[in-house]
Amino acid sequence: MDYSREELMTAVSGQMPIKRWEHTEGVMAAAVQLANKYGGDPVKADLAALLHDVAKYWPIQEQQAVVRNHPLLDQDLLNHDKQLLHSEVGYFVARSDYGVSDIEVLDAIRYHTSGRIGMTLMDKIICLADYIEPGRDFPGVDYIREQANQSLEEGLIAGFDSTIRFLLDKKKVIYPLTILARNDLVGQMKSASTKDSSIT
Amino acid sequence: MDYSREELMTAVSGQMPIKRWEHTEGVMAAAVQLANKYGGDPVKADLAALLHDVAKYWPIQEQQAVVRNHPLLDQDLLNHDKQLLHSEVGYFVARSDYGVSDIEVLDAIRYHTSGRIGMTLMDKIICLADYIEPGRDFPGVDYIREQANQSLEEGLIAGFDSTIRFLLDKKKVIYPLTILARNDLVGQMKSASTKDSSIT
Repeated sequence: MDYSREELMTAVSGQMPIKRWEHTEGVMAAAVQLANKYGGDPVKADLAALLHDVAKYWPIQEQQAVVRNHPLLDQDLLNHDKQLLHSEVGYFVARSDYGVSDIEVLDAIRYHTSGRIGMTLMDKIICLADYIEPGRDFPGVDYIREQANQSLEEGLIAGFDSTIRFLLDKKKVIYPLTILARNDLVGQMKSASTKDSSIT
Repeated sequence: MDYSREELMTAVSGQMPIKRWEHTEGVMAAAVQLANKYGGDPVKADLAALLHDVAKYWPIQEQQAVVRNHPLLDQDLLNHDKQLLHSEVGYFVARSDYGVSDIEVLDAIRYHTSGRIGMTLMDKIICLADYIEPGRDFPGVDYIREQANQSLEEGLIAGFDSTIRFLLDKKKVIYPLTILARNDLVGQMKSASTKDSSIT
């Protein structure tokens, strides 16, 4: 890491409107809380949350250019909703501009919008913190918060479900990876509950 | 075709409970109506509807065996909800047991549950007829019927959306192909409306 936490906060907050920076601070608080509750590393959670939206307010053309110029980034994202780009670009920026090398932190930034199959503990913490940070007040957020108190997986399923319902209502395209991520979590819950009942 | 329509009706109705046969007759009526309204071939629509659920009440092990024994059938279906198998098996049975050779009819049977990217006119007719046949009375079916009056695509999007919402409510896995089919239809609607507005 080439930057102190202070320096990173200054650099990141300078790339977004104050409202989005307040959201970022909310995600940092929520991520640390979830890490403490569910056995994650709170320092890594804080760092991933700090950086997760770093590219969110970059001009779309710049975000597209970063992806296009780096073949190892997911080129398929160029064919999908522009909202998905900033996670991939954030991952790249965290690594190349800010010297983050921890793959747990980098992946959590990369998959915080879409989710993925086989989400790590840190992926889950950042993605869920993004849904439930204290500043969020969209319809249904309290249900997601309740579920997040049960488990990371229940919280995330509720979060993804709210996104999917929103996209259905708006007649918008649904990113298939989010469905695969949700299906995977539903499968994890099912096998966990089978294990539970075989123990008792 | 080795069988008359009469003979097929006798053969198919003998493989399912009376309730499911009444549903099949409803799908036949709805499919012919949709074909007439939207420029499809009503004779093919009638045939595809007649056969679409032929394997629905076969024991699951037999359905699985058919798929497993024929490498050209979609083996991935063995990993998904058992409800999806009967479409693939129906496609196979229509071809090999009843001598159907028309690919439009065969594909409409094959994809009537899941949908697919690039659904043909006949795929759309059978899949939508299955949602809206007169005997259906699940919550939201009247909305799907209204949308079906607008266009095949609007009707199908409403149908798929109701399936997806049902699976979200039940915390069940969502078959990714259905999402891809729905996204494709949403894209078709969007490009159609762009064309409309560029004309006017």
